[in-house]
Amino acid sequence: MLSNHLQNGMETAKLVWSRLPNSEDGEMDDVGVSKKNDGTSVESLDYEVIENYAYREEQAQRGKLLFGYYVGVKWFFALLIGIGTGLAAVFINISVENFAGWKFELTFSIIQKSYFAGFIVYVLINLVLVLSSVYIVTQFAPAAAGSGIPEIKGYLNGVDTPGILLFRTLIGKILGSIGSVGGGLALGKEGPLVHTGACIASLLGQGGSTKYHLSSRWLQVFKSDRDRRDLVTCGCAAGVAAAFRAPVGGVLFALEEVTSWWRSQLMWRVFFTSAIVAVVVRTAMGWCKSRKCGHFGSGGFIIWDISDGQEDYSFEELLPMAVIGVIGGLLGALFNQLTLYITYWRRNYLHKRGNRVKIIEVCIVSMITSFISFGLPLLRKCSPCPESELNSGIECPQAPGMYGNYVNFYCSTDKEYNDLATIFFNTQDDAIRNLFSAKTVHEYSAQSLLTFLVMFYTLAVVTFGTAVPAGQFVPGIMIGSTYGRLVGMFVVKFYNKRNIEEGTYALLGAASFLGGSMRMTVSLCVIMVEITNNLKLLPLIMLVLLISKAVGDAFNEGLYEEQARLRGIPLLESRPKYQMRTMTAKEACGNQKVVAFPRVVKVADVVSILRSNEHNGFPVIDHTRTGETLVIGLMLRSHLLVLLQSKVDFQHSPLPSEPMRPLNSRHNFSEFVKPVSSKGISINDIHLSSDDLEMYIDLGPFLNPSPYVVPEDMSLTKVYNLFRQLGLRHIFVVPRASRVIGLITRKDLLIEDNEDSATVELQSTSVSAQQRNRRVLRRNADAERPLLNGLVAHDDHSSG
Amino acid sequence: MLSNHLQNGMETAKLVWSRLPNSEDGEMDDVGVSKKNDGTSVESLDYEVIENYAYREEQAQRGKLLFGYYVGVKWFFALLIGIGTGLAAVFINISVENFAGWKFELTFSIIQKSYFAGFIVYVLINLVLVLSSVYIVTQFAPAAAGSGIPEIKGYLNGVDTPGILLFRTLIGKILGSIGSVGGGLALGKEGPLVHTGACIASLLGQGGSTKYHLSSRWLQVFKSDRDRRDLVTCGCAAGVAAAFRAPVGGVLFALEEVTSWWRSQLMWRVFFTSAIVAVVVRTAMGWCKSRKCGHFGSGGFIIWDISDGQEDYSFEELLPMAVIGVIGGLLGALFNQLTLYITYWRRNYLHKRGNRVKIIEVCIVSMITSFISFGLPLLRKCSPCPESELNSGIECPQAPGMYGNYVNFYCSTDKEYNDLATIFFNTQDDAIRNLFSAKTVHEYSAQSLLTFLVMFYTLAVVTFGTAVPAGQFVPGIMIGSTYGRLVGMFVVKFYNKRNIEEGTYALLGAASFLGGSMRMTVSLCVIMVEITNNLKLLPLIMLVLLISKAVGDAFNEGLYEEQARLRGIPLLESRPKYQMRTMTAKEACGNQKVVAFPRVVKVADVVSILRSNEHNGFPVIDHTRTGETLVIGLMLRSHLLVLLQSKVDFQHSPLPSEPMRPLNSRHNFSEFVKPVSSKGISINDIHLSSDDLEMYIDLGPFLNPSPYVVPEDMSLTKVYNLFRQLGLRHIFVVPRASRVIGLITRKDLLIEDNEDSATVELQSTSVSAQQRNRRVLRRNADAERPLLNGLVAHDDHSSG
Repeated sequence: MLSNHLQNGMETAKLVWSRLPNSEDGEMDDVGVSKKNDGTSVESLDYEVIENYAYREEQAQRGKLLFGYYVGVKWFFALLIGIGTGLAAVFINISVENFAGWKFELTFSIIQKSYFAGFIVYVLINLVLVLSSVYIVTQFAPAAAGSGIPEIKGYLNGVDTPGILLFRTLIGKILGSIGSVGGGLALGKEGPLVHTGACIASLLGQGGSTKYHLSSRWLQVFKSDRDRRDLVTCGCAAGVAAAFRAPVGGVLFALEEVTSWWRSQLMWRVFFTSAIVAVVVRTAMGWCKSRKCGHFGSGGFIIWDISDGQEDYSFEELLPMAVIGVIGGLLGALFNQLTLYITYWRRNYLHKRGNRVKIIEVCIVSMITSFISFGLPLLRKCSPCPESELNSGIECPQAPGMYGNYVNFYCSTDKEYNDLATIFFNTQDDAIRNLFSAKTVHEYSAQSLLTFLVMFYTLAVVTFGTAVPAGQFVPGIMIGSTYGRLVGMFVVKFYNKRNIEEGTYALLGAASFLGGSMRMTVSLCVIMVEITNNLKLLPLIMLVLLISKAVGDAFNEGLYEEQARLRGIPLLESRPKYQMRTMTAKEACGNQKVVAFPRVVKVADVVSILRSNEHNGFPVIDHTRTGETLVIGLMLRSHLLVLLQSKVDFQHSPLPSEPMRPLNSRHNFSEFVKPVSSKGISINDIHLSSDDLEMYIDLGPFLNPSPYVVPEDMSLTKVYNLFRQLGLRHIFVVPRASRVIGLITRKDLLIEDNEDSATVELQSTSVSAQQRNRRVLRRNADAERPLLNGLVAHDDHSSG
Repeated sequence: MLSNHLQNGMETAKLVWSRLPNSEDGEMDDVGVSKKNDGTSVESLDYEVIENYAYREEQAQRGKLLFGYYVGVKWFFALLIGIGTGLAAVFINISVENFAGWKFELTFSIIQKSYFAGFIVYVLINLVLVLSSVYIVTQFAPAAAGSGIPEIKGYLNGVDTPGILLFRTLIGKILGSIGSVGGGLALGKEGPLVHTGACIASLLGQGGSTKYHLSSRWLQVFKSDRDRRDLVTCGCAAGVAAAFRAPVGGVLFALEEVTSWWRSQLMWRVFFTSAIVAVVVRTAMGWCKSRKCGHFGSGGFIIWDISDGQEDYSFEELLPMAVIGVIGGLLGALFNQLTLYITYWRRNYLHKRGNRVKIIEVCIVSMITSFISFGLPLLRKCSPCPESELNSGIECPQAPGMYGNYVNFYCSTDKEYNDLATIFFNTQDDAIRNLFSAKTVHEYSAQSLLTFLVMFYTLAVVTFGTAVPAGQFVPGIMIGSTYGRLVGMFVVKFYNKRNIEEGTYALLGAASFLGGSMRMTVSLCVIMVEITNNLKLLPLIMLVLLISKAVGDAFNEGLYEEQARLRGIPLLESRPKYQMRTMTAKEACGNQKVVAFPRVVKVADVVSILRSNEHNGFPVIDHTRTGETLVIGLMLRSHLLVLLQSKVDFQHSPLPSEPMRPLNSRHNFSEFVKPVSSKGISINDIHLSSDDLEMYIDLGPFLNPSPYVVPEDMSLTKVYNLFRQLGLRHIFVVPRASRVIGLITRKDLLIEDNEDSATVELQSTSVSAQQRNRRVLRRNADAERPLLNGLVAHDDHSSG
């Protein structure tokens, strides 16, 4: 039978391939697949087998040393990411605290004389800070706007948004969030810190920024996309760990929210990065004690310690807590929906008119925010200080310009405080601390809290999507803790128990709103516990989160997913769609025409094919001597473009080439790596002479020899799982096989390794694998028989 | 070309298959793949397409309702698992605390008169308790011995150890661990609780235990292996959550340590289960307050609150902490190695001699333990009570039989205490509490701690692997906190600072030993934080864990992995072995002969093939009318055995059958489900008459029509990833394809679902999918053309 004949031929065919840094291709362990060169011919050439084994042994030894080196480099990079992100967080925090502290100090000192002058100064300072932020972002780093988490999620899912991980974005993000947070907008610095961590990680991963001549050759270690993605995952965790001083929360955030492919070895490294961040931040804060860093130190990192909060809860309290969960789900879902509409409108109408509109928009938002946060407390009557609280160590009123509860603002006497000013005319961190505070029953009136809730919710919705770096964590906590405290006030009134703390309800409210908006569960829970330093509330936080997420899920998707969809980032969810059950692989391909290359292809054909379509991968199909066709691999567009650009592989002969010079002398393998966040080469960038167009390229050494394949009638659900779980970019849909050569089961894969390579990470081998392959190629070039030649043509002589 | 012709034929072939509950096959979403019945014939039969779409629409509607139902059931089961595991934990704890409390009370009251009589009573009580445990385990539930975590890990990895999840194992585990822990052996009740949770989950998953007539029809909802595995994962998390009152730790333990395939939807449910456990345990403990539950309440659940511990740490303390990490790594690795040797020896020499030897062994171990824990403190001189501690609320000495520090044991005066008795002559929970205790500087002498360390380490190693339920958490914490406290004592002496607490070092020591032995990182870290209720120590625990795990990894694998290997549980690690890089799929199959079935097969052939080999899966290969062969699917041995046993599918004709009766009237689909932890049917259980042997079976409706395939020359690393990531059981190795029908890329998989099915879990459809398939079959049976007939034979008439 012909087809059998063909496959027998295939078994004897000698295949040599080199693996290129498969930057466009997310396939794990794709790199470093070196095929040994013995088929049926093994039996006739025993000495070659022996030599081959000795050679492989030696290869393995050297490979392992390299492995060790790369594992070491990975850990070193994790250390650097931790230190870098920690320092960035400290820098942002010190700057924000100093700007804000100085602003409030100045304003308070002026309003002792004139409230109007103070107001003007307050508005102006905010405006200048926000203006600096929006200016940097619009002029210098447009990708730094927003929280960045949807884009990072997309990157880790396999979608590279241009510009998102550049050096300029990093700088824009850091400076921009100082301005926007310092300027008192209703946004946080935590989301941007996650983005910052990811940028630092990505820049380290590609060895610095080439554009600003900050790159270093020896840092360019990681050529595979997977290694870089792992680093970015570490960066995200470091960002959360730094933002909330929540190392475990950071690990879980990276696991639950951002990453798409997770491996246990990665968890271990992410954990290390987070621990480093915790140490760095702690060291910096220790150094900043005793006012070395200006205003930083009294407020600073968000740690709202409520360990002196409620000790115990009774069963009847579970009902109001469930109510908080429901409110959180509803308000969170509403927040997602409103921001979705507003962002949609902004993208399609407002922001199309250019940067000037963006700047004006942010300035207007800033002025409105200043008006409301200064003006509303003015309208509010002051309350007299509670007398019983004097012995609890909480002063009333606070000294002007200091942080704490009971702010005296526009009050007639000294023994009064303005409850609205306590939360409104303050930095958000301090406002949250005040809302969470225990032992301050009846500090706020329901009216003030309601006013604040409505106003701040509106501000948060309006501010979302403006052209400044903006996180949603802290605004979410603000909103949530306000209604949480409101519920808490009713509980105190209704149940009339002394041990109920309003601050605890505020915390639960914060958790519920974040749960209802971001739909995280475990990581959010741990973050809330870590920032409040109160483990006893864990089951309550869990309960509230479960309810709010369930309620929110009934309405729409999570904030990040909605935003990612809006931004056109096609996230592949972890589970297949419902419809896929009734579809087959072939149906998913639709009527697309498969454009295949032969092994040796004319340059003119390559150019015309690349021009005529936008496919990123092409099957390579060759003919055996008997005329049968055989799929020999996958060629990536990006690699083809590199080959066209470099021209060194052009040849005159339309026959498979014998590599006269080893491949690595012709190519620096890092050419094939597409830099992160760039668009790569386009076919239009390539200019070839008419002589060039008449030449040929042998694609044999450059193709991916075994992409994953599925039979044409496989259910699309299965195909989806294959694609998603392995992080693939291309799957070939092929006809059903005519025979089964073997079955692989668990026992076939349980190979005992005699050499103890347990500590070696297999995924870390992009470069080492290349080097091995180079050696393989060199060796092959030395060999008498031209092995590359036999890529498909089956060699009857050697097998016979 | 012939092969092309064949594949074109294939495209027009009508395929109908029913999906059976694929109990042996771990493939996700394998169930419910209903292939629509239009190939090329679609174009000629438009009305059929329309009808088909309407039908599919209706199917989708009904399917979604069912989905909703099953999702609801899953959550209800998670609730039940949480409640069940929580109650089991409470029961175990109440029992252990009461037995142990009663034991110590009695002993203390006797030793007031005679130390010798007290000793005898103490030894006897321990012996009786331990004897009851080992008797239950050896006679009734042999699978309940040990911690059970390696077996559960194996189950979740895809290896079903017989007996591990049965009802009798559950009972044996609960009662056995009460006896062994109450009897004072050097083992813990935490590992067994994880196993208990898993058993509860598994029994719920298969609707109770059939053997004990405890099964309920309406509970038998989950027929797919994956759903059951998900439940067991929930059970593991619940076990940890209950054992340590660490809900987040439980989730992370399930994630990091036991589960092999993880999905984010599962995390959400596991989280819920843990929260339920926390609430149940808390409620029970609240109810047990004021001595309602006897001795339980004062000791009970391990929560060693050291929130009054060390507030701060200085940089010079990092060195001794690193030393603790190194010690932990070394001692942990040594522990793994020693237990490995001892278990190996036990399995191969001792335990082969039957249950009597096992019982005698445990009794000897129990007596040695009693001797040492009673005798050693006798040899130790008492120390005078510290005077300065009187105002710290810690009594010295404790009243006899009470829990706490400063146990007065064999002391000459009342104002003295015996430091060795404080940790040795006590329950382990209290001993740990005493070791962790702050504000008790110089309570222990270095000599006592060293004695205890050596003795307890030896006891723990010897006790490990005896035929009683045994956890390694608490012994590990004991060992670790002893040397941790030792280091802490030196630090106090050397640095001479007042704010250094020995208890904090004890905690770090405990973390380091567990890290060095079990090699968990994130989950262990969270568990330690949750049980000590001190978040400030998090970075330190992280640091110590990192060091101890790294040191331990340099020597051997983690405790559970080593034990799993020893027990012959072939765990597939998450990363491929080093050697696989140079191997191909074909090489992995080796020289195995592939035994294939034709579509319609003679019963005698099936029997002889099943007898002649032990393969669990067989390719089914059919011939087209043109004589070409085509792989049409995978048939599982277990399904073949069910078919042979039921005989209803036997037919006289060697041609593909037309289903005269719909498949579901012939088969109850739950027949095909292999019960968990059983061996299933064997070929030797099947008895067929010679008439039966002459009949035929049409395998068409029972095969898995599209198993995953790989080309023969694909790198084994890639194959491994496919196998491991998707949790497969069988992969077909096939020849390279001759052509590519299409390429699937990300955009082909981004199908927008118009209907909002976001809240529907796709994995939960074993039964609903079956029902749909039944309907499909019924419909096909009603149709005029016999579709099953056309499974392979391509229909030229309809396409022409």
